[in-house]
Amino acid sequence: MNALNWWQAPCQPLDPVARAKARARQDLLTKPRGALGQLEELAITLAAHQGRERPSLEHPWFAVFAGDHGVVAEGVSAYPQAVTGEMLRNFVRGGAAISVLARSLGATLELVDLGTAIPLEPLPGVLHLQLGAGTANFAREPAMTAAQCLIALEAGRASVERAVGAGAELFVGGEMGIGNTTTASALACALLGLPAGALTGPGTGLDDRGVARKVAVIDRALALHRGACTGPEETLRCLGGFEVAALAGAYLACGQLGLTALVDGFICSVAALCAVRLNPACREWLLFAHRSAEPGHKAVLEALEADPLLDLGLRLGEGSGAAAAVPLLRLACELHGGMATFAEAAVSDRPA
Amino acid sequence: MNALNWWQAPCQPLDPVARAKARARQDLLTKPRGALGQLEELAITLAAHQGRERPSLEHPWFAVFAGDHGVVAEGVSAYPQAVTGEMLRNFVRGGAAISVLARSLGATLELVDLGTAIPLEPLPGVLHLQLGAGTANFAREPAMTAAQCLIALEAGRASVERAVGAGAELFVGGEMGIGNTTTASALACALLGLPAGALTGPGTGLDDRGVARKVAVIDRALALHRGACTGPEETLRCLGGFEVAALAGAYLACGQLGLTALVDGFICSVAALCAVRLNPACREWLLFAHRSAEPGHKAVLEALEADPLLDLGLRLGEGSGAAAAVPLLRLACELHGGMATFAEAAVSDRPA
Repeated sequence: MNALNWWQAPCQPLDPVARAKARARQDLLTKPRGALGQLEELAITLAAHQGRERPSLEHPWFAVFAGDHGVVAEGVSAYPQAVTGEMLRNFVRGGAAISVLARSLGATLELVDLGTAIPLEPLPGVLHLQLGAGTANFAREPAMTAAQCLIALEAGRASVERAVGAGAELFVGGEMGIGNTTTASALACALLGLPAGALTGPGTGLDDRGVARKVAVIDRALALHRGACTGPEETLRCLGGFEVAALAGAYLACGQLGLTALVDGFICSVAALCAVRLNPACREWLLFAHRSAEPGHKAVLEALEADPLLDLGLRLGEGSGAAAAVPLLRLACELHGGMATFAEAAVSDRPA
Repeated sequence: MNALNWWQAPCQPLDPVARAKARARQDLLTKPRGALGQLEELAITLAAHQGRERPSLEHPWFAVFAGDHGVVAEGVSAYPQAVTGEMLRNFVRGGAAISVLARSLGATLELVDLGTAIPLEPLPGVLHLQLGAGTANFAREPAMTAAQCLIALEAGRASVERAVGAGAELFVGGEMGIGNTTTASALACALLGLPAGALTGPGTGLDDRGVARKVAVIDRALALHRGACTGPEETLRCLGGFEVAALAGAYLACGQLGLTALVDGFICSVAALCAVRLNPACREWLLFAHRSAEPGHKAVLEALEADPLLDLGLRLGEGSGAAAAVPLLRLACELHGGMATFAEAAVSDRPA
């Protein structure tokens, strides 16, 4: 274990005592057993994560990782590549969806620039790592060098370390990167052994012809890199993106540092799949926020045995779907901690 | 039109100008069009309800209606009938799920006692209408007299009038009444022309034998009252409950007074179905919060052409599922009002 494979270090175990106490408490609260459905399981899982019978969720940490994708040269996106940097400026000025959500939810919003096609001027509050002018075009060569991939993974870990240091009880990762559904589809295909047609969709809004082109580009890339993709790390390097690697690093660090991660939509779930392939034990620290409208998400969620909280047809990214689910986690904690037991309330429980 | 059929008066029209302006605004915000899925439609609907391009949701009004059900004498519930009153006391003391949710969401919580089997002492903050010691056993006779049904409908309307007077932007109705899934299943069967087997489930936790008995009781009641159920009002009187009639009255009043109603689970949806049968125009003022774990909910939602926001396996009632969806409405408003447009943020939109 060293700086080059930190992600293989063990993850924190969940607290079985806190979990058992929380489950017992749920059965005493003034409601029919199980009547709060997934909100009960959420409270119990958060108890096991936080190591206490009554978990809380005061301080969520949002981190949005931005990076460009060389594969956009193949004509796989509906939007120009300049949008990645323009949206970073929009995050800073507070006009993007994730900016509004972070304000509304009282979350810290951290912004990390991993490398845009058009290098950005220094932006206030943005961590500029700028690993390159976007990744290389993986339709022709590996997307990242080994060093870029390592630094991107490390950038995710560093964000989680800052979150833990700030006392956050939840990590929400988000991404911005024109072309990154192409990257995510390619990665998921390689990790799951599926052809591009099974996992490729319109992204931000391709028409049918655009989707067909995207499928062809991905299938070509899968064939090109098949020999090199001998494991999840090599697959991530050949087909991934800066922000996808950073998210994978963040989810791995959440497992190792014992911080709950709430995974957003398609791209974040593919990053989570990479993380779980790199270190399966991190899976226990991941909650899944929503089912994306992007069609490939279903198979990725199944591979992760994930049952997300929301299904609202969202397909924005930025971490916005995970942010939208934060109130459910908070309400689950508040119900769990704040409801009276049958005994406290002198309410008749059903006959045993 | 008079005090005896107030619900037939016209409902407020939705504001087409505000709706069109809100829809146009959604298309200018810095995100791919449609990428916020149901959150976009929610904001547009709330704009049409509130008559302004940028709706808000500061003050939700929760009203929980409690009443007992004579049909419990047939052995259709897992819990003793005393629980209805005991839970009202729990609502007052703040220990019930809906109490915790109202506190957390900054909602007004109004409690209305429509008549419990064991009459309650005066409880602080509870409106005691006490229309009777629960309804009559509809397996043997009509559940309500005509006067009881009218007063219950009126109780719902009065709550909505208070909500409007207090400046609330949202009405959330809840219910408490041991036995009320039996009532709701019977009502839904009569209104939809289905046998009990199609719409009857375990409620708070019956086993298979209990469900079979519940089905037999409902089928018997449907046969007994078939001749009398000539319209929705008579059906509600013969097979309904005090709290179900109050909820129906509330939803009708929401339509007439122009207040958004967020409908909770199975029982509230059956009340909404009654309301829509009594005055179809109120449908436009109803949003649906969640899919209940109670199996009959699916058919009722389909009859109402409703596509709820959440699907978390909830089956508690009290309005809890609707409360859990309130943050989504708030976030929809905040995203709609707070995001920058492409022009404001100088972000490149896709080519037209």
